[in-house]
Amino acid sequence: MSIKVAVPKETAEGERRVAMESSVIAKLGKLGAEVLLETGAGSAAHLPDSAFNGASIVASAAELYQQADIVLKVQAPSLAEIEQLKEGSVLIGSLQPYQHPERIAALKAKNITSFAMELIPRISRAQSMDVLSSQAAIAGYKAAIMGADLAPRFFPMLTTAAGTIRPSKVIIIGVGVAGLQAIATARRLGAVVEAYDVRSATKEQVQSLGAKFIELGITAEGAGGYARELTDAEKQQQQAELAKHIATADVLITTAAVPGRPSPKIIPETTVDGMKSGAVIIDLAAEGGGNCTLTQPGKTIVHNGVIIHAPLNVPSQVAVHASEMYAKNLLNFLTPMLKDGAYAPDFSDEVIAGALLTHEGKIMNESIRQLVEGAE
Amino acid sequence: MSIKVAVPKETAEGERRVAMESSVIAKLGKLGAEVLLETGAGSAAHLPDSAFNGASIVASAAELYQQADIVLKVQAPSLAEIEQLKEGSVLIGSLQPYQHPERIAALKAKNITSFAMELIPRISRAQSMDVLSSQAAIAGYKAAIMGADLAPRFFPMLTTAAGTIRPSKVIIIGVGVAGLQAIATARRLGAVVEAYDVRSATKEQVQSLGAKFIELGITAEGAGGYARELTDAEKQQQQAELAKHIATADVLITTAAVPGRPSPKIIPETTVDGMKSGAVIIDLAAEGGGNCTLTQPGKTIVHNGVIIHAPLNVPSQVAVHASEMYAKNLLNFLTPMLKDGAYAPDFSDEVIAGALLTHEGKIMNESIRQLVEGAE
Repeated sequence: MSIKVAVPKETAEGERRVAMESSVIAKLGKLGAEVLLETGAGSAAHLPDSAFNGASIVASAAELYQQADIVLKVQAPSLAEIEQLKEGSVLIGSLQPYQHPERIAALKAKNITSFAMELIPRISRAQSMDVLSSQAAIAGYKAAIMGADLAPRFFPMLTTAAGTIRPSKVIIIGVGVAGLQAIATARRLGAVVEAYDVRSATKEQVQSLGAKFIELGITAEGAGGYARELTDAEKQQQQAELAKHIATADVLITTAAVPGRPSPKIIPETTVDGMKSGAVIIDLAAEGGGNCTLTQPGKTIVHNGVIIHAPLNVPSQVAVHASEMYAKNLLNFLTPMLKDGAYAPDFSDEVIAGALLTHEGKIMNESIRQLVEGAE
Repeated sequence: MSIKVAVPKETAEGERRVAMESSVIAKLGKLGAEVLLETGAGSAAHLPDSAFNGASIVASAAELYQQADIVLKVQAPSLAEIEQLKEGSVLIGSLQPYQHPERIAALKAKNITSFAMELIPRISRAQSMDVLSSQAAIAGYKAAIMGADLAPRFFPMLTTAAGTIRPSKVIIIGVGVAGLQAIATARRLGAVVEAYDVRSATKEQVQSLGAKFIELGITAEGAGGYARELTDAEKQQQQAELAKHIATADVLITTAAVPGRPSPKIIPETTVDGMKSGAVIIDLAAEGGGNCTLTQPGKTIVHNGVIIHAPLNVPSQVAVHASEMYAKNLLNFLTPMLKDGAYAPDFSDEVIAGALLTHEGKIMNESIRQLVEGAE
């Protein structure tokens, strides 16, 4: 009897992605796994059941969970969904343990073996499983498109019989995966692009995409490829210097995030007040509260003529390709655990061990265990 | 006493543009004209009064019209606005005489000398005054951006550690100024682009932008650079052949318009039914009823998973640059009429005569005269 990999319809509000894609079904088949899909699981991504060639379509989530050996999810299952999981089954998804400690406790109580994709160590072997990167790439691309759509100005230079329109200036704050894709997309559209990051090591990447690196004389290289937090004095200097550059922007895209913490407030109201009327801010850090103090997560507001757009779950808006990349990340994580048609994870592998959240009735990640159960 | 050129705030619903721009104010000044601007005229375009350096700001439209020798407008003035115009003054704008015959009659009755920018003959000397072209360029660019924003798919190819996302296919129907800008913008974003036009002469232009020309074996070159109407048999053949191509599209942008007539219906429901779920149609011909039979002008609908977006007055969404280009078109038209600081049009000039709509109590354009007054 082959292993049953089950993919339910996501239930979180606004979530359009689905944790499966047709090419992944075929590859799992070769590994001896059968894919079960809840009917309509792809509908919010404009993917009908027929787009999942080779999957067995199941009429309801309850029926799906009863049969599942391994459940693949985009977002963490709700408590009601965890209730339906089969005791001892395996769950893989972006489980956001820090936001949902009560769900981790429920997974533990139900003896679920759960893996959080965000906890996979960022080593080169695991790049192909990196959902943070794949979804950030989508978000960065989309941020530039949203900026172009909301702006009352043209991005490219336009030469006409009546004269020439100068290209827009797009400034990007935070040069991670999302920032780099935003730079590349704004450049493709013909905008003049400048970018800033506290990590000066990003300068070459910015320049290689044809953009100008903004130098402020402050650096904050941190661990794991992220930025460390700045001191208050550094923050003030950063804000004042940045404000001068930002005053010239037609579109500002901010992507600065510190994992597990609220987004740093690097765009105060005074900076927005210095911007031109009709300028657009796309605050990609809205999930963590936003990089701009005026940001209202999930909303689009206008402040003194400046349009501040703070979308949540941006990858979900590009649901077809975001799902495809996410499903491929899951496949790459799952593949080494499937041997000769059987589920046989090597828990000593640093990638598997790093992602492991709950197993055999225990919380395996120490900092999350402390969060859920308290320090001992 | 210098000539007073007056620019009111546009009053038509959804109109954000303004018929003036700062560089045009300076140039008119050198020609001996003074620019008067109604306060807030640029506010919908995110242009505060202070953006119109050199213009005299006037508190109300009524006060503005009392002083005006020449009034510059984006859209045709309403009957209430015409009521406020000074007897014998000059009006220049996109007056849409075929849509508003009652307003033309009112302009005649009020002894206004009116010029319709759309009626300027399309000769090379007049290219710099061509508002149809300048605004269509904006609309074509914006159509590609709207397509990218509404699509659940990435436009560019994306290569990641987890695999490669193929680029989207964008198909553009109608290769005029708008179609060419849509092609160029979709190409910039990395999409694979195909385009179709009944005028086979557009093939080279399409190819020069890196897109593929769709050959159907039907041609319909018409007068003045527009397409002639097809016969019913030609239309059926065109639709059937096009449908096969369109079935492969991720985004379809239609721009087919025949001047003064409803937009040709080249995308029937059966063609839409053949499209993939999540495909997007941007119907730029919505003002004339649309190129798709399902189009609801001004709305976004979903039909069997296909998103059909039919925006009205697209240039208005890019109001800063659309206003700038429009104002430059007006300047180029107005310049030859201003001699030694005086308004002195040469009515024998074919450009000026071509645009002339009403003058000295008469309707000067014969086909519009017949429309308004009936044949004699």
